[in-house]
Amino acid sequence: MSKSSWSPAELKRVRIEGGLLGERQRMILRRSIDQQYQQCKSTGRIDALKLQWKSGSDLPKPHEFWDSDIGKWIESAAYALMIEPNAELERRVDEVADLLEGAQQPDGYLNSHFSAVAPEKRFTNLRDQHELYCAGHLIEAAVAYFQATGKRKILDVLCRYVDCIDSTFGTEPGMKNGYDGHEEIELALIKLWKTTGDVKHLKLAKHFIDARGKQPHFFTQEAISRGDDPKKMWGGGYEYYQAHLPVREQSTVEGHSVRALYLFAGVADVAAATGDKPLLKACRRIFKNLTGRRMYITGGVGSTRHGERFTYDFDLPNESAYAETCASIALVFFAQRMMNIDRDGKYADAMETALYNGVLSGISLDGEKYFYANYLATDPKWHRLEGGYPAERQGWFGCACCPPNLARLIASIGMYVYSTGEDEIAVNLYANASATFELKGNRITLEQRTDYPWDETVRIKLSVAELKSFTLHLRIPGWCRKYKLKINGKKTNAKRFVKNGYASIIRTWRDGDRIELTLAMPPTRVYADPRVRHNTGRAAITRGPIVYCLEQSDNRAHLNAIVLPEKSKLRVNYESRLLGGVTTIRAKAAREKFNKGDKLYQERRPQTVGQSIKAIPYYAWANRGEGEMIVWIREG
Amino acid sequence: MSKSSWSPAELKRVRIEGGLLGERQRMILRRSIDQQYQQCKSTGRIDALKLQWKSGSDLPKPHEFWDSDIGKWIESAAYALMIEPNAELERRVDEVADLLEGAQQPDGYLNSHFSAVAPEKRFTNLRDQHELYCAGHLIEAAVAYFQATGKRKILDVLCRYVDCIDSTFGTEPGMKNGYDGHEEIELALIKLWKTTGDVKHLKLAKHFIDARGKQPHFFTQEAISRGDDPKKMWGGGYEYYQAHLPVREQSTVEGHSVRALYLFAGVADVAAATGDKPLLKACRRIFKNLTGRRMYITGGVGSTRHGERFTYDFDLPNESAYAETCASIALVFFAQRMMNIDRDGKYADAMETALYNGVLSGISLDGEKYFYANYLATDPKWHRLEGGYPAERQGWFGCACCPPNLARLIASIGMYVYSTGEDEIAVNLYANASATFELKGNRITLEQRTDYPWDETVRIKLSVAELKSFTLHLRIPGWCRKYKLKINGKKTNAKRFVKNGYASIIRTWRDGDRIELTLAMPPTRVYADPRVRHNTGRAAITRGPIVYCLEQSDNRAHLNAIVLPEKSKLRVNYESRLLGGVTTIRAKAAREKFNKGDKLYQERRPQTVGQSIKAIPYYAWANRGEGEMIVWIREG
Repeated sequence: MSKSSWSPAELKRVRIEGGLLGERQRMILRRSIDQQYQQCKSTGRIDALKLQWKSGSDLPKPHEFWDSDIGKWIESAAYALMIEPNAELERRVDEVADLLEGAQQPDGYLNSHFSAVAPEKRFTNLRDQHELYCAGHLIEAAVAYFQATGKRKILDVLCRYVDCIDSTFGTEPGMKNGYDGHEEIELALIKLWKTTGDVKHLKLAKHFIDARGKQPHFFTQEAISRGDDPKKMWGGGYEYYQAHLPVREQSTVEGHSVRALYLFAGVADVAAATGDKPLLKACRRIFKNLTGRRMYITGGVGSTRHGERFTYDFDLPNESAYAETCASIALVFFAQRMMNIDRDGKYADAMETALYNGVLSGISLDGEKYFYANYLATDPKWHRLEGGYPAERQGWFGCACCPPNLARLIASIGMYVYSTGEDEIAVNLYANASATFELKGNRITLEQRTDYPWDETVRIKLSVAELKSFTLHLRIPGWCRKYKLKINGKKTNAKRFVKNGYASIIRTWRDGDRIELTLAMPPTRVYADPRVRHNTGRAAITRGPIVYCLEQSDNRAHLNAIVLPEKSKLRVNYESRLLGGVTTIRAKAAREKFNKGDKLYQERRPQTVGQSIKAIPYYAWANRGEGEMIVWIREG
Repeated sequence: MSKSSWSPAELKRVRIEGGLLGERQRMILRRSIDQQYQQCKSTGRIDALKLQWKSGSDLPKPHEFWDSDIGKWIESAAYALMIEPNAELERRVDEVADLLEGAQQPDGYLNSHFSAVAPEKRFTNLRDQHELYCAGHLIEAAVAYFQATGKRKILDVLCRYVDCIDSTFGTEPGMKNGYDGHEEIELALIKLWKTTGDVKHLKLAKHFIDARGKQPHFFTQEAISRGDDPKKMWGGGYEYYQAHLPVREQSTVEGHSVRALYLFAGVADVAAATGDKPLLKACRRIFKNLTGRRMYITGGVGSTRHGERFTYDFDLPNESAYAETCASIALVFFAQRMMNIDRDGKYADAMETALYNGVLSGISLDGEKYFYANYLATDPKWHRLEGGYPAERQGWFGCACCPPNLARLIASIGMYVYSTGEDEIAVNLYANASATFELKGNRITLEQRTDYPWDETVRIKLSVAELKSFTLHLRIPGWCRKYKLKINGKKTNAKRFVKNGYASIIRTWRDGDRIELTLAMPPTRVYADPRVRHNTGRAAITRGPIVYCLEQSDNRAHLNAIVLPEKSKLRVNYESRLLGGVTTIRAKAAREKFNKGDKLYQERRPQTVGQSIKAIPYYAWANRGEGEMIVWIREG
């Protein structure tokens, strides 16, 4: 790993209690993980590992994605166990571990779909069949459960499977010089390498990245070997699979959005691990295109449900937005890695935006319903008629990638709050999160207290066993125009510390040192580049990292008849009993009157009447029944 | 027919020369009809009538729609022959007539698909297989060709086919108490009845309308008879087929838009023919819902390509508009019938709007390329990615309903320009159209001279063999706020003549009487009801019946970055060399500057620079290469 990169904090050593992130994490630990287990159980996903399905049997046929859901559920459970003991949960995981062990083939191969349904098709269609994607999720599960419990069973099973994969894929004669159509295993192998220390795991990850998109094209050769027409493919073209160009030559983020961002998370990992500069530069180019041209203000990405994919620069429709929950999660993964490598707050900004908006919107306040697609505007009638997903969260999905992905991210959010380096600690996100670090053998504890993102003030108390000089990096978010820093009650000129989005305080810290950081959070109107044709003439309201929206339940139907005057003041109000406690924003606005009679079109400009509007955090929408919602509000 | 209804003018007696409609008609007669014949020939549509296709043969398999294309092509050719002799064209039709005769089965049945491909499936799936729809189009062809040439061959063939249909469908025991999933035969049978005078043709039309949507449901019974699950159907539900309720009980225009409007055109015909008030009232309700809630400003209808259908009130998206050319044509058919029955200009207004905008946009200026879907805004990249049709007109379509539909409407437009009653002549549309009428044995000729819709003045000269008292109805369009009328050079207080959208002048007319009507045509901003969420904050520009749009070629890309100030003056300019000669509209506007660097979102409201904009008639868009287009322009 390059010398100056940060590492995520150890999850076991971070405690988040209360506050928005703490509450969401608590809901995941208390409800979602159990609910998702029940879903995996009742839909047959877990029992599929018994490999009892046969043609004609009554059992549900194992789908090629199913192992990935098991992987993400185990990973979530492992993070939960790192946070607090739970014997019943651990017992369930151990049961699944036994099933995984039982499902492993003599040569190490492990996949409930292929082993039961189509063993002869194993590794014949990497392009479309998610085989290594499932392997990747199981590897992540294995690493997390090992870290949580020290139990090696799943880890050993997966190491054997990786040996099997490693002996199948590579550049040597007789091996498949290929890679998976749905990336995921790359970043998983890096986690495995960091756990096992076995360099072959790193090399395999690097192989999958190096081989991707090269000529002669693996997917073409593979299709010909199968006797298929290589031009006929699910994704329509190789850019769907990020295989249109070698990874090092890619500059725009293309194709299926989750795949693209899982890939570049893995690419960033490999770049950091190997010091491969062209790879790192590719990551920076991709990030720039992603956040500068193709990202919703919520951190949602992937503009269309047709292919769940990126489309083209500035194409960010609101009502038909796809912005898959998993894609925002993948953006968090990618941004976190870049933040830790480049030590730059711009990555943390994207990570925070996605987390508080496009990710959190994916789960209901009760922790048991999920959005797959996160629209930025909805007329529920339109969503019902035009296909895609309805405008209400669902309990589960046939392709159930998002729910356990949410669970594993939010359960492990402590690793995103803090990073550490050799003699440094970085606070990337603000939350009621206490954490302990070891810097060169010194134990340092940070006690963070805040009502962020509702409140502007963050207080951090340091505990150090002895005097200790190290750098404390406090993130100054990109959205923040004014901030104040006090150390031990004394005002400090914070600006002189700030570089690349962090106030980096180098100091000999004493036990009991207190920091107070105030990040001014005025409600703010934000405008999209006018090339985003969907948002011209409109403003979004934000406050701190939170993007707001108007919902029908607060503002009546026909939200696009509302005009927010340019001068209208935005007023902030914390409502403890609304939507689990949120800060709302109110303003005086106007509403256009509907035409009289049956005049659909008329020469008179619509007249207006006054209306007070109330905006709520976007992540909390659709928790009060079906209704219209908009993020981008007309200005006039 | 109810006593006071008007009838369309006889096409043979109307001559349109020059002007916009004249030019479009000339292009149809000179180019489109021939080009469409070549397409029907080269794709196998015509030769399919030889019934030589067999399973395994190299011949193209006759599609179930193909006969309808032949029908519409013959109908277009017949109208062309009414306008001017064309021996080669007539020879071609006669050849096809022989093929139709040859394709007729001993019992009268006639369908190139079923007779060649699936004779055993004849009349087993009316819901989805367009059998009577094809019959309808062939009936219309038969009537038109008989009227054009007096030749009876096609008419006799179709009368025999109608006998076969008549003996199959009805309420008597052993008959199918059903109707077609794609309406068309209803209005065709009325044309046949008016030609043959045979009341059984009227009765059959009435049967199809009376049976529709009744319980027990024909489509359900039919599906069960086939052994199909009645719930599985192409359209998703019976409203797609306008069979969700008995026709007399329908109040909102639902489902597939072409089907719906063909149906109600036929319903209006039957209501007029039988004096059936509930049927007529249903037509009025449907028209009200259609034009007051579900019609684009262009007269386009059917908001979505998913089912080519109506969606719900006020749902009129621009970029994803479907607004099929055929649907606007069907709207013209329906509106014309209602205009003639109710003698009310509001129907003529809708007819004119659809004709000059949603219909004419369907065909390129060179007469050889067609739009199936008529978007009201396009970003060509979006249309390429999101499926549907591209944003450029095409030479032909697999489902080629629109091209010959355009040809038959525009070839026969003379029948829409004028209507007549017992002692009355109505001028519904203004064009360089001379026409001759017989009113109670008196021959009256109207010579209409105008540059409408570019010029405000219409001059009509009457020729009457002897003094004659009759009513001349001159339409005062709904869009017209100021008009002046001169009779023989003398100003007349026109207002006192105006009722229901027509200035109705009762007078003893003399040979050489001259009328001059001036319809003020200022360029106008039009606003949609604010419940149309896609158009709030935007204005459309219209002038007379013409809806305007901005194209990239005149105004540069990123048309949604343009803001038209509320006070900006719209200036009119006739450009004889542009797009075949059009009046354009210019204004001073502003363009928002794009963000600098990679700031996709920023807190500063976009700054603007001045830009002159130029709007062209919507129907003429996409004749100068691919590019952006918008109808609804941001106002500020």
